Amino acid sequence: MGYFEFLDYLGTGVFAISGALVAMRRRLDPFGVFIIGFVTAVGGGTIRDILLGNQPVMWMQQTIYVFISLFSIVLAILFRNHLKYINRSLSLFDTIGIGIFTIIGTKTGINHHLSAIICVALGTITATFGGVVRDILCSRVPIIFKKEIYATACIFGGIVFIILYRLGVSTDFSYIFTILTVVIIRLIAVKYKLSLPPFSQKE
Amino acid sequence: MGYFEFLDYLGTGVFAISGALVAMRRRLDPFGVFIIGFVTAVGGGTIRDILLGNQPVMWMQQTIYVFISLFSIVLAILFRNHLKYINRSLSLFDTIGIGIFTIIGTKTGINHHLSAIICVALGTITATFGGVVRDILCSRVPIIFKKEIYATACIFGGIVFIILYRLGVSTDFSYIFTILTVVIIRLIAVKYKLSLPPFSQKE
Amino acid sequence: MGYFEFLDYLGTGVFAISGALVAMRRRLDPFGVFIIGFVTAVGGGTIRDILLGNQPVMWMQQTIYVFISLFSIVLAILFRNHLKYINRSLSLFDTIGIGIFTIIGTKTGINHHLSAIICVALGTITATFGGVVRDILCSRVPIIFKKEIYATACIFGGIVFIILYRLGVSTDFSYIFTILTVVIIRLIAVKYKLSLPPFSQKE
Repeated sequence: MGYFEFLDYLGTGVFAISGALVAMRRRLDPFGVFIIGFVTAVGGGTIRDILLGNQPVMWMQQTIYVFISLFSIVLAILFRNHLKYINRSLSLFDTIGIGIFTIIGTKTGINHHLSAIICVALGTITATFGGVVRDILCSRVPIIFKKEIYATACIFGGIVFIILYRLGVSTDFSYIFTILTVVIIRLIAVKYKLSLPPFSQKE
Repeated sequence: MGYFEFLDYLGTGVFAISGALVAMRRRLDPFGVFIIGFVTAVGGGTIRDILLGNQPVMWMQQTIYVFISLFSIVLAILFRNHLKYINRSLSLFDTIGIGIFTIIGTKTGINHHLSAIICVALGTITATFGGVVRDILCSRVPIIFKKEIYATACIFGGIVFIILYRLGVSTDFSYIFTILTVVIIRLIAVKYKLSLPPFSQKE
Repeated sequence: MGYFEFLDYLGTGVFAISGALVAMRRRLDPFGVFIIGFVTAVGGGTIRDILLGNQPVMWMQQTIYVFISLFSIVLAILFRNHLKYINRSLSLFDTIGIGIFTIIGTKTGINHHLSAIICVALGTITATFGGVVRDILCSRVPIIFKKEIYATACIFGGIVFIILYRLGVSTDFSYIFTILTVVIIRLIAVKYKLSLPPFSQKE
């Protein structure tokens, strides 16, 4: 297992935890907690695979995604009262997670010889749509449409990755640089409480 | 038509009725009632087929699903003021329906040579995600995440079915035994008002 | 580019604008405005393609859909305070849009040799489900289930198109006649404030 796969699995686990935490806060029953956790972890990749026609979708073929998700959700349940204390580091993991998922999605698009804008879209979908499905299932307006530079960081990450790829930069370096781009944009956005302002409208 | 197909069609019809009833209670217009009824009936199977790559999805190839749904929805509309009296038997049909759909989904996974945990997931998705889509379209938190041993019964049913399948038990017997498992778990849960309690959380 | 493609692109643009307007009214951030606009424009066709197994979905293969959507959303943002004055003509465009999308969806079903009822369903899905996804993402009950003869116009349009197709009527004429059917039904419905009444229910 390379370090990239390790990061992919880490991203899956962190997303599963974040989904399980939202579901528990909403007082869903244990089954709901597992489903929401799982959907948050694999939802983005599932939608990407369906849009591309890569079926059966990835977690049906590589069940390790299922086991990582289940294991992470169990962790989230056991430590549900302590996770607020590690919230800050969780948020860092989560940001690394979206960085990784941005690369995976963008790279899948490149492998399918799709145009650059579609590759960036696939990266952003892979990174963010697990959270979108989570929020829809919990019946709230998806948080990425309302808060912070989240998807925007993925879009920039995807663009950086494609530029590095076209320049022929080594894979390792382009992975690290893309993840750093996403993480740094997010850290700055969180630190300075940056968010894209909604458009003003005259009533 | 074997008795299994008969039960499949019965399940489709009962799910269509349950969807139409929810939509009428929400005061949707007739078009909404038909769409929600139809989506409840075929939604689980549609999502299963999409995840697997079995397209065009089943109701596009076998239009009998469409006609059974439409016919059942018309029945639900005509008898909308009487259905509360037959609610109890409807609930039994519904439970038989999720039993059947659990088998169909689990068996589809086995036919695709997927691992056991994915087969159980497909059974549960087929049985419950029609209702999830219904609830999302009606803008409410999916009821299966909040109430009663519903999806849990499907998970147990799927596990029982796979064990019987691996033991080489005859098809007829394994069908009946799986459906009985789901029905009995549900009946006990409803009778004793069992539900999985949400996890306690310190605030 | 034939006049039909022109109308297809026009429909895409108008749907993108309508999605962006809803998102701005909901005070979503700019990213949300782009996503909702884009999803409204291509969502119906995307769901049609996924149900049929036509993947990668159309906007991944023909990026012109992406560029038309982005351009239209930028227009919607720039002129957001003026669009209420051109609301009437926008609504006419929108109606032409659903007419076109009804034809495209119905014709796709015919090309796949599916039965008539499925073709009509595909036409209606292509025309209306972009709006359904938009409303789900904005966390409200899809407006088409509640208001006006909207999907109903698509259903009639699809039926008219199939009849004309089976009669061997020339393509041009059947396109125009179908669009006129949809537009006229909608105009009458809007003018006389017609809507399908919800079913009465005794409490």
